[in-house]
Amino acid sequence: MFSTHALYGTKLSPEQNKIFGHSNKSGFFHKHLNIKKNQSHTENLMSWCNNGRISSKDRIQCKALQLQTSPTFLKGDKFQLQDVIEAQQFDRDTLSAIFEVAREMETIEKKSHGSQLLNGYLMATLFYEPSTRTRLSFESAMKRLGGEVLTTENAREFSSAAKGETLEDSIRTVEGYSDIIVMRHFESGAARRAAMTANIPVINAGDGPGQHPTQALLDVYTIEREIGKLDGIKVGLVGDLANGRTVRSLAYLLAKYNDVKIYFVSPEVVKMKEDIKEYLTLNGVEWEESKDLKEVASKCDVVYQTRIQKERFGERSDIYEEARGKYIIDTDVLGVMQKHAIVMHPLPRLDEITVDVDGDPRAAYFRQAKNGLYIRMALLKLLLVGW
Amino acid sequence: MFSTHALYGTKLSPEQNKIFGHSNKSGFFHKHLNIKKNQSHTENLMSWCNNGRISSKDRIQCKALQLQTSPTFLKGDKFQLQDVIEAQQFDRDTLSAIFEVAREMETIEKKSHGSQLLNGYLMATLFYEPSTRTRLSFESAMKRLGGEVLTTENAREFSSAAKGETLEDSIRTVEGYSDIIVMRHFESGAARRAAMTANIPVINAGDGPGQHPTQALLDVYTIEREIGKLDGIKVGLVGDLANGRTVRSLAYLLAKYNDVKIYFVSPEVVKMKEDIKEYLTLNGVEWEESKDLKEVASKCDVVYQTRIQKERFGERSDIYEEARGKYIIDTDVLGVMQKHAIVMHPLPRLDEITVDVDGDPRAAYFRQAKNGLYIRMALLKLLLVGW
Amino acid sequence: MFSTHALYGTKLSPEQNKIFGHSNKSGFFHKHLNIKKNQSHTENLMSWCNNGRISSKDRIQCKALQLQTSPTFLKGDKFQLQDVIEAQQFDRDTLSAIFEVAREMETIEKKSHGSQLLNGYLMATLFYEPSTRTRLSFESAMKRLGGEVLTTENAREFSSAAKGETLEDSIRTVEGYSDIIVMRHFESGAARRAAMTANIPVINAGDGPGQHPTQALLDVYTIEREIGKLDGIKVGLVGDLANGRTVRSLAYLLAKYNDVKIYFVSPEVVKMKEDIKEYLTLNGVEWEESKDLKEVASKCDVVYQTRIQKERFGERSDIYEEARGKYIIDTDVLGVMQKHAIVMHPLPRLDEITVDVDGDPRAAYFRQAKNGLYIRMALLKLLLVGW
Repeated sequence: MFSTHALYGTKLSPEQNKIFGHSNKSGFFHKHLNIKKNQSHTENLMSWCNNGRISSKDRIQCKALQLQTSPTFLKGDKFQLQDVIEAQQFDRDTLSAIFEVAREMETIEKKSHGSQLLNGYLMATLFYEPSTRTRLSFESAMKRLGGEVLTTENAREFSSAAKGETLEDSIRTVEGYSDIIVMRHFESGAARRAAMTANIPVINAGDGPGQHPTQALLDVYTIEREIGKLDGIKVGLVGDLANGRTVRSLAYLLAKYNDVKIYFVSPEVVKMKEDIKEYLTLNGVEWEESKDLKEVASKCDVVYQTRIQKERFGERSDIYEEARGKYIIDTDVLGVMQKHAIVMHPLPRLDEITVDVDGDPRAAYFRQAKNGLYIRMALLKLLLVGW
Repeated sequence: MFSTHALYGTKLSPEQNKIFGHSNKSGFFHKHLNIKKNQSHTENLMSWCNNGRISSKDRIQCKALQLQTSPTFLKGDKFQLQDVIEAQQFDRDTLSAIFEVAREMETIEKKSHGSQLLNGYLMATLFYEPSTRTRLSFESAMKRLGGEVLTTENAREFSSAAKGETLEDSIRTVEGYSDIIVMRHFESGAARRAAMTANIPVINAGDGPGQHPTQALLDVYTIEREIGKLDGIKVGLVGDLANGRTVRSLAYLLAKYNDVKIYFVSPEVVKMKEDIKEYLTLNGVEWEESKDLKEVASKCDVVYQTRIQKERFGERSDIYEEARGKYIIDTDVLGVMQKHAIVMHPLPRLDEITVDVDGDPRAAYFRQAKNGLYIRMALLKLLLVGW
Repeated sequence: MFSTHALYGTKLSPEQNKIFGHSNKSGFFHKHLNIKKNQSHTENLMSWCNNGRISSKDRIQCKALQLQTSPTFLKGDKFQLQDVIEAQQFDRDTLSAIFEVAREMETIEKKSHGSQLLNGYLMATLFYEPSTRTRLSFESAMKRLGGEVLTTENAREFSSAAKGETLEDSIRTVEGYSDIIVMRHFESGAARRAAMTANIPVINAGDGPGQHPTQALLDVYTIEREIGKLDGIKVGLVGDLANGRTVRSLAYLLAKYNDVKIYFVSPEVVKMKEDIKEYLTLNGVEWEESKDLKEVASKCDVVYQTRIQKERFGERSDIYEEARGKYIIDTDVLGVMQKHAIVMHPLPRLDEITVDVDGDPRAAYFRQAKNGLYIRMALLKLLLVGW
């Protein structure tokens, strides 16, 4: 799926319908969106792009242009979400607006007999590698809203050695069967390629070492939900900060808020990389590295623990074992934490949080997992029926 | 899922709701259940357990207590089924009550356009090893009642080598996505652990060499449905009686009825084990061993055949081949059976019942498989919406 | 599922109901079908077959008889479709009638919120080998019509080495859980065996090197839809004509129309086999072989490209590479094609059609894939609720 400013607020012509396929189904372009005054040049380009008779090659260039220039949030008016590809696509206002919808979803989910909001819509979960946790979360979200699901964890079969179909061809086939695609892929950038191809919305459910934007969103949502604010908070990021996709995204998103302070607590071998540190500094976020988990825990609103991933250490299991045991959250750490503070973890965990922490009200990680459901419900709603 | 006597008949407080999560969704605790007078000590314990502020560790002890003391059937009042973990949890009255509901389910299934009884409910089939037959039976049951399903045969991926998540953590994640969990696991006792953890109902769909309670229920239901009674019947158990989970459970359940006579017919190497024989004797069930299948068949109401499992014989395929060919049900055996008698088999079969038996009305094994659907529909209904 | 002429127009007796199981659910036999006068002998046989008390062995013979003699289309009256096993079962009138329903399905699919036409019906996709594309297409078709799906790509597990259940036993189990079976199998003839066993409709979704009738139907439907007619057309079949199941079926079906001309364009090693050429000649279809793709393309209404399948060449990758590069459809070929002509391809493609062709309106292959959805919707409707 993609769209252009010039399309906003207009009905698709039959010509456009032919090109944009299903898109009218979702009532996508009928939304109350106005054109931003300062984008008249882009608009002219877009207007050309909207010509139904442009060639396939030009069409791809148009899409690239549209992906770059698509607005995320228009003041005084609601944005239209088109795809969810990376955490960076969301600004502060957009996040806030999505979180508001996620809150409504909590109410809907708790009511018996579910909602019929997405009745008649069909989601395809196209997983090129298995991720049962993420897949079940998305599928539950769709079904809690009355929608239906086509599912495959076997999507590699599309492009098996013998067959060799491109991702683009697979997407053009699957978009004929469904209204929205949730894709998990082993290659960074695959989700963006899918979104460029598809005429229906695409959600990135993780593409290799690249992005996992719905995880990033649910993390920020959990902080807001539990702590009550995002400005002025102190967050300790603990564990594997070098390889952890989630902590990197979280640091990135926290930089959008004011007066945030971040503490990095990690074994030397898996320290937070320079790019994120520089990014934080540039965006006025205070940060420091520490070796003292307890001291950090006593100061923070949020202690975000992560798993040290064995697979990153290859043969050096001695280094892994040393790194792994270094910063454990147990009842001792919990003892120094403030009463309102929380412990988060993206799950699955091994023993980096001991099980005796689970019973404490500050152990927020299972609530965090549950929040993933609400965030995904919100995104599905926004992508399929709008605000 | 678990519950306590003290909870019965009361609405959950907001405090309790926080702890018990989804449970209010199913209207679980609002049922017409009274407290048994003779359990006042337990009640006191339970009352303490219900205190929303107890620690996580105490909470686990409470659950253990509750699992042990949970009533299965209260005279003059309907019980509330909470989990289905093992065949032994059902007494005679409970079985009879479940069978009554299964009968209603037959009527519902036969009507076109299905029921909407479980509309809005979501079942997770969490299979740690594939069992297509059992999985499809449960999923059909849920869908025939208008419910929805999240499915995975890949649940091992949750706890894959690289990740190593505990079963308990997986369950706490999945219970956030669904209203009931149907679990198949390769380890004996896994279902009970899941039920101890989950705040929603759990059904054991087979845990390793342990239990497969819905199979046991459908077997007894089939006998009652086909023969019209359970007291005073004669049952021949044939084939692999040493390893067959189903015949062991069936013998156990039959001991709850009066004047039952059981015949064991099996090759020497796979004889019924002593524990069951002693159990039967202790419970006043007459039994005898026989080498003459025809003679037994001529006397029985039910001839329950089982497959000799090759995998139990390891290298000794000679012994397997001898055992396997010994007691075959064919038209000759059928010839001596009484007109009202039936042949049962848990399926799949190889050649221990010849295909020319299939056409005889006494061949009950496919009807038996179908009864699995009705039993599972009944259990889903009872666990999710009660009586 | 099967049925007999004598059944048409009559209600099933309770006796028959017992044998035919679910069939009354679909309102199958209540349809307005009359008996053809010239089949009185068959009728007598059928009448005997309909005797509820015939033996199991006789019952199988009856089924064989019924499969052979079942009508596909009765003039002045609508036929009742019972199973979809092979392309050959459809005559010209039947195809035309199915295509009419497929057109209605296009309208239904485009409306938001889907149809409830198959609400309450349950389809089992029983795949003995994975075929994600075909499976998702069928499951989308069922869900777009409001039906539900039980799915397995793991059906081999039913008959795994250790268990060895026959296909027939598996079918008799699965038919107890669903209203229609869509089966993919690795063995030629498996679909027919399933249909002989099942008392509910069976659709063949590909059985090994044998048949894939819904692909054949969607191909013919696409030609009619895009070209506007099937009589008097010129069709170029390009690529692997020796092994391609689709081109063979297409040639077969095109022989049912008048004044069709077929051109075969293929590397020497994968030429169209003699049996099809003879069949075409016998049925008055003109055909010729050509080495000049451009010349053929300039004359044809349809250029049907296929993939050269590497796996057919074994060790001889040199021959494969030569064959593969020989007949590519690119913008040059497109340049000589007529304005109304189309390029088709069963997908997946590698590079036998270059991607710069995709943007041309004559590139019909993704529309063709989408037509598979409409054909499958039509067949599901016809098999489950009739006309």
